[in-house]
Amino acid sequence: MNDLFNTPIDRRGSGSAKWDLMDKLFGVDPVDGLAMWTADSDYPTAPCVIEAVQAEVDRGIFGYFSDTPRYTGAVKWWMANRHDWEIEEDWIVPTHGLGNGVALCVDVWTQPDDHVVIFSPVYHEFAAKVRRAGRTVTECPLKREGDVYQLDLEDAQARLTGKETMLIWCSPQNPTGRVWSPDELRAVADFAERNGMMLLSDEVHHDLIYPGNRFVAMDVAAPDVRPRLVVLTAASKTFNLAGQRVGALIIPDPGLRAAMEARINALDSKPNALGFIMSAAAYSPEGAAWVDAQVEHLIGNRAVFDEAVNAIPGVRSLPLQGTYLAWVDFSGTGMSFDEFNARIRDEAKIAASPGPSFGTGGETCMRINLATTRGIVSEAGARLQRAFADLQ
Amino acid sequence: MNDLFNTPIDRRGSGSAKWDLMDKLFGVDPVDGLAMWTADSDYPTAPCVIEAVQAEVDRGIFGYFSDTPRYTGAVKWWMANRHDWEIEEDWIVPTHGLGNGVALCVDVWTQPDDHVVIFSPVYHEFAAKVRRAGRTVTECPLKREGDVYQLDLEDAQARLTGKETMLIWCSPQNPTGRVWSPDELRAVADFAERNGMMLLSDEVHHDLIYPGNRFVAMDVAAPDVRPRLVVLTAASKTFNLAGQRVGALIIPDPGLRAAMEARINALDSKPNALGFIMSAAAYSPEGAAWVDAQVEHLIGNRAVFDEAVNAIPGVRSLPLQGTYLAWVDFSGTGMSFDEFNARIRDEAKIAASPGPSFGTGGETCMRINLATTRGIVSEAGARLQRAFADLQ
Ligand SMILES: Cc1ncc(COP(=O)(O)O)c(C=O)c1O
Ligand SMILES: Cc1ncc(COP(=O)(O)O)c(C=O)c1O
Repeated sequence: MNDLFNTPIDRRGSGSAKWDLMDKLFGVDPVDGLAMWTADSDYPTAPCVIEAVQAEVDRGIFGYFSDTPRYTGAVKWWMANRHDWEIEEDWIVPTHGLGNGVALCVDVWTQPDDHVVIFSPVYHEFAAKVRRAGRTVTECPLKREGDVYQLDLEDAQARLTGKETMLIWCSPQNPTGRVWSPDELRAVADFAERNGMMLLSDEVHHDLIYPGNRFVAMDVAAPDVRPRLVVLTAASKTFNLAGQRVGALIIPDPGLRAAMEARINALDSKPNALGFIMSAAAYSPEGAAWVDAQVEHLIGNRAVFDEAVNAIPGVRSLPLQGTYLAWVDFSGTGMSFDEFNARIRDEAKIAASPGPSFGTGGETCMRINLATTRGIVSEAGARLQRAFADLQ
Repeated sequence: MNDLFNTPIDRRGSGSAKWDLMDKLFGVDPVDGLAMWTADSDYPTAPCVIEAVQAEVDRGIFGYFSDTPRYTGAVKWWMANRHDWEIEEDWIVPTHGLGNGVALCVDVWTQPDDHVVIFSPVYHEFAAKVRRAGRTVTECPLKREGDVYQLDLEDAQARLTGKETMLIWCSPQNPTGRVWSPDELRAVADFAERNGMMLLSDEVHHDLIYPGNRFVAMDVAAPDVRPRLVVLTAASKTFNLAGQRVGALIIPDPGLRAAMEARINALDSKPNALGFIMSAAAYSPEGAAWVDAQVEHLIGNRAVFDEAVNAIPGVRSLPLQGTYLAWVDFSGTGMSFDEFNARIRDEAKIAASPGPSFGTGGETCMRINLATTRGIVSEAGARLQRAFADLQ
């Protein structure tokens, strides 16, 4: 077992949203609870990232920062070397976190009357951001076939009202763990094209892919969609840097790029210096080696978790293709959401993300974050077995 | 001489906008030039701030951050203890830097047809932000009486077009170094009130005040203006944290506050974790003692600089009441802006902020940042004397 990812660290009281809000948000015991909801990790980031921020702390000066190319150059290197995706440095528009990036896209490219398409179940913040901006969500459910979620574009087409101007796509998909094939990506691109929609492809989970699957960037699968494409990325999930709030929009089309840059300038919303420096350090050969080690760790976590959970009659941890977010289906138990949720909260004392929050298709599920030590994953499996022991 | 502020640190090549952009932005020799333009300091931040960020780096986990009260509690403490200003913690709306705070206010509280009042010469970004948002600036010049800039509200009233809905006020004033009296503040508040305008009071320079002057917060001087008041503050200038981009809007009125919070939520634009933690650590007794030491250092810098510059016939460093930004008037030389600017750039090799960029009243001036070592201040004085030696 790898020490990098298995050293127990008590994050309670450290200002960690994941650990310090589990009582307030989910009613889970703050002392005995296991925080397995929001998408950050319980292990330290890569040593190369820590060295980079340490060098700044040693200097002790935190004035205005100008070295954006240190970041954009690193993003370009990462996409080429890790994702076989050749981009130009000037396509990269840094944002104050990826959530802010999504929100800015909605702000810049939709009007109050517009609808935005999402394929559910999907990262709950897509719909939340659309609604907070006063726009309307057009939800198109994925189709579950056995253990796998599939696109149903015929059904989606039938759901369109004619007001849709944007599609927010998640690849790999949070929370279903789907890694999409080039054919599926092309079908989505065609769908956006055919219906005259902007296509946002949120690829933040691209680095954490399990053996047998291969992530392909939207721009690689469907280069023809560039005139309407914005790719969203960040080191925040892969390197556990979400608190530093640095993300990037990758926008090949110069006109779209100029519109976004003007909005970011008007809002004076460039990222912070340490976040830039940490993200730049992450996107490096040392960072890549650390990610490979992390994926090994997650493969083990997934196996331990799935074995424990799938031993409970009626409960199924769907086979993840990517992401560290287990998607567990309780439909076979015959219980209502409230019932299995109460057992997870009060008996297992696990703070997990409620399936229904991800939209249609999530009603019988919970999302459980496995980016933690093997010890916590095992403990969670054991607690779930006990909480549902009456089903044995 | 205090070592905290006088250790020479070569910031060239460190990603410092101030040092690394002086060639590109001002055409100043990047090797021999002295960077004395944008408002950050060449000395490290307070030790208590470095200790706080070091603790986070030692933990190595940079996930989602929830401890906003660590920051808002510290802001409240600072205002009470350093500025005799009692605020409620929930008045504090953190923003992604103060520049972003100004921009958000323009975004939330003005419409495209609106005009925004500024009193020039003033921080150039006020006008820039108004214009980038597609609004119009109504510039009301301050009146120079001898060495001191004064309000001329009769003149200002005459300049209003009837479309003004917001006034952006700078207190203490960048770049004139004015620290406003309670009477002046009340007059400004009345002016805003009388003309039905929102009043933004940017008080970011409040901590750096020279003996004989006293900073008073707008809310203390004119509490009646609360229903239209937003105070802007940050540790970014005082503690050299501008790159970390954390600021705060202090909004006593609940309705105004709710509108701003909704917009920040919609944009998903809360500050970053390390910036929060550093700013919180700054606003402490240890931080206060360090600020006192910094002010001592700046008093010395100001004296050295003024003595050197005021020895040049026709050049006058106006007596600063606050801020570390010297405001130097070259009108007595009879030179055009282009002529004295060329001498400063090419002969003195000093990157300074051009007076005209601050609007009407700045035509004959340069703003020169004194937040550096005594050595650089002396060198700058000597260089200016040489560059204008023919005037002796
Ligand atoms: C698909 C997706 N997009 C965006 C985000 C937000 O990323 P950040 O916190 O870096 O803004 C998340 C976080 O979980 C995510 O899963
Ligand atoms: C008056 C004033 N307001 C706002 C700012 C911007 O502050 P920040 O860089 O912390 O956003 C400055 C910077 O010089 C300033 O002088």
